[in-house]
Amino acid sequence: MADEALFQFLHNEVIQYIYKSSEHGEMENGRCITKLENMGFRVGQGLIERFTKDTARFKDELDVMKFICKDFWTCVFKKQIDNLRTNHQGIYVLQDNKFRLLTQLSAGKQYLEHAPKYLAFTCGLVRGGLSNLGVKSIVTAEVSVMPACKFQVMIQKM
Amino acid sequence: MADEALFQFLHNEVIQYIYKSSEHGEMENGRCITKLENMGFRVGQGLIERFTKDTARFKDELDVMKFICKDFWTCVFKKQIDNLRTNHQGIYVLQDNKFRLLTQLSAGKQYLEHAPKYLAFTCGLVRGGLSNLGVKSIVTAEVSVMPACKFQVMIQKM
Repeated sequence: MADEALFQFLHNEVIQYIYKSSEHGEMENGRCITKLENMGFRVGQGLIERFTKDTARFKDELDVMKFICKDFWTCVFKKQIDNLRTNHQGIYVLQDNKFRLLTQLSAGKQYLEHAPKYLAFTCGLVRGGLSNLGVKSIVTAEVSVMPACKFQVMIQKM
Repeated sequence: MADEALFQFLHNEVIQYIYKSSEHGEMENGRCITKLENMGFRVGQGLIERFTKDTARFKDELDVMKFICKDFWTCVFKKQIDNLRTNHQGIYVLQDNKFRLLTQLSAGKQYLEHAPKYLAFTCGLVRGGLSNLGVKSIVTAEVSVMPACKFQVMIQKM
């Protein structure tokens, strides 16, 4: 619980800090999101290196995705992804029914618009993790009812 | 280990981000340190609230400091403070012989100048924690040989 809190509080501070700088007119919303995503990317790269230090080689793309959904997610968010779906053509949808970085937000509809800034870092985290496993991707997130959310991973064929 | 890594990587990203903004001439070094310290302060405030939720009331100032050195430090840095000294007049020196946020830096003397940016957040963390326990303080840090470091807490009598 302590570790969770540490990450969560720091994550919030980072969001606030970045959005505060943007108030001074330096950045608009889109650029804030990009900054957060980039941070997540680099953290994801670092993390996956540690996490996979002693794991066996992955069989295929699906195997990699399962690792992200189980081991990676558990390490970072203390729970697994609840549902993983794929169209077997390079699109994966990871559903988390109780996404930790959203649970602190009120579930009222009026807060939905704030959800993206709480998801950007994690999108980057997934993209960075995948990238260091040799899988290039685009990761987006969407929320319909908080705190559930879906991450869509589109694999970029090389 | 995973949690440690998450915090550590994010902490590094935050430092880099803040210092990068400063390169664009927006801030000088002192202001970066202040920003990091302020972030730490708010995270420390949040953390101490969680950590002390179920603890007994503290007897006195020294009791509070012991809590910071043991429980708080262990939660955040996975080890206790190695040595706590006080002059019994409101100055406390907390020594960590292997401070986690410095262990990734090379121990060479030429890197000593970079140490302050890796300590500012933690100074704030301690100050924020103490503040929410009703103890107003000024916290500074110094490094003589990495990765050992000393945090000096000067209690501000109210």
